[in-house]
Order: sequence, then C-alpha cells, then structure tokens
Amino acid sequence: MITETEKRDAQLKAAQMIRAAGLMIRDDEIETIEVVDFGLGNLETEGVEVFTMVNTDRLAAKILVLFPNQTEPEHWHPQVEGDPGKQETVRHIWGDLRFYVEGPETLSRGFVVAGKEDVYTLRHEIDMSPGDQLTFEPYEKHWFQAGASGAVLYSFSTTVRDGLDGFTDPEIQRITLVNKDE
Amino acid sequence: MITETEKRDAQLKAAQMIRAAGLMIRDDEIETIEVVDFGLGNLETEGVEVFTMVNTDRLAAKILVLFPNQTEPEHWHPQVEGDPGKQETVRHIWGDLRFYVEGPETLSRGFVVAGKEDVYTLRHEIDMSPGDQLTFEPYEKHWFQAGASGAVLYSFSTTVRDGLDGFTDPEIQRITLVNKDE
Repeated sequence: MITETEKRDAQLKAAQMIRAAGLMIRDDEIETIEVVDFGLGNLETEGVEVFTMVNTDRLAAKILVLFPNQTEPEHWHPQVEGDPGKQETVRHIWGDLRFYVEGPETLSRGFVVAGKEDVYTLRHEIDMSPGDQLTFEPYEKHWFQAGASGAVLYSFSTTVRDGLDGFTDPEIQRITLVNKDE
Repeated sequence: MITETEKRDAQLKAAQMIRAAGLMIRDDEIETIEVVDFGLGNLETEGVEVFTMVNTDRLAAKILVLFPNQTEPEHWHPQVEGDPGKQETVRHIWGDLRFYVEGPETLSRGFVVAGKEDVYTLRHEIDMSPGDQLTFEPYEKHWFQAGASGAVLYSFSTTVRDGLDGFTDPEIQRITLVNKDE
C-alpha cells in the first residue's frame, strides 16, 4: 500500500528519469504512470514505475523505470484463457540495469533483496548496456534490478494482464492499493 | 530502386534525427535502418526510414523517420492467413507530422504529392503534436507526411508482414531494391 503523496512523488521522479533518458512523456501523461509496490509497502526497495504508451487487446508498449537500487520481483507470464501467454521483449535505454534469468549462478554486481533469498531463486546475471534486448516467452521466470543510477527501459509485449502474472513471493499483490494521505 | 550510397546516407540522416528526437539507437544498429523508396525511385518525396527494435511472430516495435516533406504513401494492412490483420498504433515524438485518414476533407497544412491525386484518396488531415497517438485497425487506410522539420514517431503493431500491405498506388513495390553504386 502507498499513499497518494507517495504515488505523486514517485510519478514525478519517474517522469524526470524518463526525460533524462531522452524519452518523451507529456505533462498530462505523468499522472497515468503506474506506481507498483507489489503490495509489499517498500516501494524504494521492491517496485517499478510503468508508463503505458499503448495497451490494446493485442499488444502493449511501455516505458519502465526503476529507481536507484530498486528491484522488480521475480515473476513470469502464464498462459490464460486460450491465449498462448504474454511474450515480452525489453530494450534497455538508460542507466544501470541487470536482469536475472535461468542459468548458472553469475550474480556479482547486483544483490538479492535482504531476507528474501527464498523468493529470488534466479541468480544468472545479465549486465545490460543501452540497446541490449531480451525476449521472454510465456512462463520464463525473470527479475531485474537497477544500480546506483536507476534505469529506464522499454517493454514491448503481447496483451498485458498484469493481474494474472505469477510471482515467486507469495506475499505479492500485483494490484497496488493507494490510500488517502493520513 | 536506390543505390548503396543513397541507402547509407539515408541511414545516417535518419539516425541523426532519431537522436535529435532524444531516442536511443546504437552505432551498430544504424546499418539495420530500412530505407524504403516503395520502388518509386524518389526517396526524398515518397519514402520512409524504419528502425525496427522488435519484430517477433507476435508483435513489432519500430521508430519511423520521415525526412522534411517526405510522404509515406496511402496504404492499409490486410488480413492474411487466418491472422486478423495488423493492428498498429503510432505515437508522435518529434517534428512536424500530419496523418490522413477517412473523413471530411480538411487537408490544409500538408499537400498531395504532385501528379498523384488519384493514389492519395484520403484528405482528412490530423495535425499531430508530440504524444498524440492513432490506432489503425486492419484495412483502415492511411498516409502520413512530415513538414519542414521532418518527423520521428513510434509504430507499435502486431506482427508485421510489410510485403503484404495494400497500396492505393499500383506502381508501389514495398520491398526496396538496392543497387550497387555505378
């Protein structure tokens, strides 16, 4: 859960990073940025900020922002309702970014969120440079993390049903609740 | 038909415009930019430059460049082989850009390519500002044109089979032939 103020602050910070990366977001689009804390209540540590440019019944194009040292938890995109499942390609644009996928343990630059070793099972690190891309087929587990600068990347995918993603961490709720300020 | 030199020059010019718009293209990606003259041999007048970021069996994400006053001819995306047809969303990023779609005649800022009135049938002009988006369903005809600055835009779509697009102009060949320099 996050407050309205935390949400607005995160939207502004994400928009600044999108613009620092050279990408375009209009002033009136900033309030559409989704601030996702995965129900964990610790946005700066585990979370992601998502600017959705397009999301039709067939495809989605998004700009993802990770704040410095922020981690998007381990997840996968399942098959649902006769759809073959979400296929996603990410393209790194700006900042420090590392992906974690199936494979031999190579984690060295990043870190597993403290006390969460059980729900970050993938330890194969891919250090991303701007322009590097990865494609995930349905059910391919992955998590990713920014370094000290934060990161801005594209996500291009078939139709997104984020509410149906699978997460290793059973504590996660994909739909962020926003509370009035106290 | 274009020559190797024309192709390379157009690729460099398009990359400069992509970067001027703030978008990211790596040096080693410049040679992948597709320079499309539609078989008309008059690239600066009718043509488009296409940087494909992603093109899988399910979706495509591209950056399109129009040089100053360059026009992409009138076309549509048909249904093919049981696929419901290409759905495309464009998002304008930088420069002067006008789209032409079905509707009442409002053409005022742009122009129909000289002598080609018969093959540019749409005269409903949409003047685009950065961030403006349009979505075309299969078979929805459209053409577009840059003003004096040229234009840079995104195209997000389901799988692209450019070779199967329909064009109003019967002279058009979608697959550009590149000749050795003379």
